Parts: sequence; structure tokens; C-alpha cells
Amino acid sequence: MTAAPAEPRVCSIARTLDIVGEKWALLAVREVFLGDRRFDEMVKRTGAPRDTLAARLRTLVNAGVLERRPYSEHPARFEYFLTAAGLDLYPVITTLRTWGDKYLAGDDGPPMSVEHRCGHELAARLVCEACGEPVSPRDTRPVYPERRGLQPQAFGAAVPGA
Amino acid sequence: MTAAPAEPRVCSIARTLDIVGEKWALLAVREVFLGDRRFDEMVKRTGAPRDTLAARLRTLVNAGVLERRPYSEHPARFEYFLTAAGLDLYPVITTLRTWGDKYLAGDDGPPMSVEHRCGHELAARLVCEACGEPVSPRDTRPVYPERRGLQPQAFGAAVPGA
Repeated sequence: MTAAPAEPRVCSIARTLDIVGEKWALLAVREVFLGDRRFDEMVKRTGAPRDTLAARLRTLVNAGVLERRPYSEHPARFEYFLTAAGLDLYPVITTLRTWGDKYLAGDDGPPMSVEHRCGHELAARLVCEACGEPVSPRDTRPVYPERRGLQPQAFGAAVPGA
Repeated sequence: MTAAPAEPRVCSIARTLDIVGEKWALLAVREVFLGDRRFDEMVKRTGAPRDTLAARLRTLVNAGVLERRPYSEHPARFEYFLTAAGLDLYPVITTLRTWGDKYLAGDDGPPMSVEHRCGHELAARLVCEACGEPVSPRDTRPVYPERRGLQPQAFGAAVPGA
């Protein structure tokens, strides 16, 4: 028996994960969002192995997510800043936090909250820009360009019992 | 010189990444969202090494993200379904896709789109549940329980030039 050849989906999720799909990469991005811009501080506040964090930061800089700027010449030291692309990872970071707050907080409750400028604690919700309704997997279906014209999948096909 | 001891943040993002913070784990979740429930199909559509995918699926089942149900007894074969916690990863998957569509699609454009039940192509936006405004890192600031009463960080501290 020969295994079927792999035909990985051409997919924006997979492409994104090639850059940030690893714990230490996203925790480095988290640190910069929280204002920790320096390597030693990031090591301390993530717990990442130094070599691993250095490699992830290189990837993030090469991918245009972070930008590094020198703050010391002797020795050469850098701070990391979010680019526009990096700032656009805020929804990814926020939805990860929301999920952890809901499912992994335990009896102590969420360890950190975020305040929105409106004065409320941020509870972030994903909505459809067109109709403003909350986005649920029950109400969506994938559309593949190469399958246009074919019978589309039903809404909510991923949802057991939907 | 002794390195400062690590003091990793107690953080919902880190906790979530302990479960899904690895490319193949999230791609397995993606597959189930897209209706591919069986191991061989997931291997084919993700390109994951079989051993790695099997390990990630075990983690996801143990964490309560996926549930497996037998569809064959001889040989024993299982299908994977999203639990309520798994379905709640939809915003994570969606924000990763949105980012990849924006920054990594290239000349061919996004490889897949999603249709919302309202009839429009889904453009998902994160909003504050309290005020309904879009969520931007410029308009948020972290609040740590142990620092309540201390001077809070400014809004948008992560944003260069904000």
C-alpha cells in the first residue's frame, strides 16, 4: 500500500503559521505589544531559550513583522518595534488571549486584562464587516476559487449537529 | 555575569500556545473546520509528518479541543470533531487567515475565501463588545491585577509613534 501523496492546501493560515506558527515567535510579538523591546527582557518575560528567541526574532524581522533599531553601539544592542504588518497581528494575539482566558484561566481568573479606550475591559468579538453580525463557524462556508460554480459546502459544515 | 532569572509572564496567550502554538496543531484544527475529519486526509491536506500529526491530535484531544469518535472497528479508525472549546478557536483561525490574505497572498490573491451567511465574502473585524468600535492596539492598554492602583501604561504604548 502506498500512502496518498501529500497535497497540502494552498492556504493563508499555513503561510502565516510559517512565520508565527511557533510559541516563541508569538510570545516575542506579545512582548513587543506589551512594550518590552529588548532581547534580555524578552528572554526573561517569555522564558524562551536565548538561541531560539534570537532565531525567531531574525525570522520576524526578515518577514517584516518586527523592525530592529540600535539603542547602543558599544556593545551593539537593538530594540524591536512592530511594523504595520506586526501591528496587524493584534487580532491574532487578542483571540489567543480570549481563548486562554475562557478555557485555561482556572480559579484565579485571567492573569491580565486589557482596557479599551472606551473605558471598558476589552471583550473582543469578531464581526462580519458587511453585516456587523458576530462571526460564527455556523454561519460561514469556505469558497475555493478553483471550485467556483460547483456545489458549495453547506454553512456550518464543521459544527457537529449544526 | 549571571543572566537574570526567567520570570515568564503568567499569561493566557502563553497557555493557549502551549496547546495550539505549533503549526501542525493549528493546521489540524483548520482541517476539522473545513470538514476533513480523518487522519489520512489530514496528513494529505496539511503535509504534516504522520507521527507529528498523531502527537498533535492526541494533545488536542487531551486538551478538550477535539473529540474523536470511531467510524470503523476493524481496523479501529476515528474521526475528529470540534468540541465547544475547539469551535471557539474559530476567531484564531480566522485572524491568522486574514493576516495571511493581507500580507502573504502575492499576485494570485487569497487562495480561499469564506462566505458569510449574510451573502458577503467574510471580512472579519475585531470589535469591542462594549462600544462596538474596531479594536486597535492604539486604543488598548494592559491591566495587571497585581498592579492595580499603580500608574497604568498609556494607550497604544506598543505602537511606534502613537
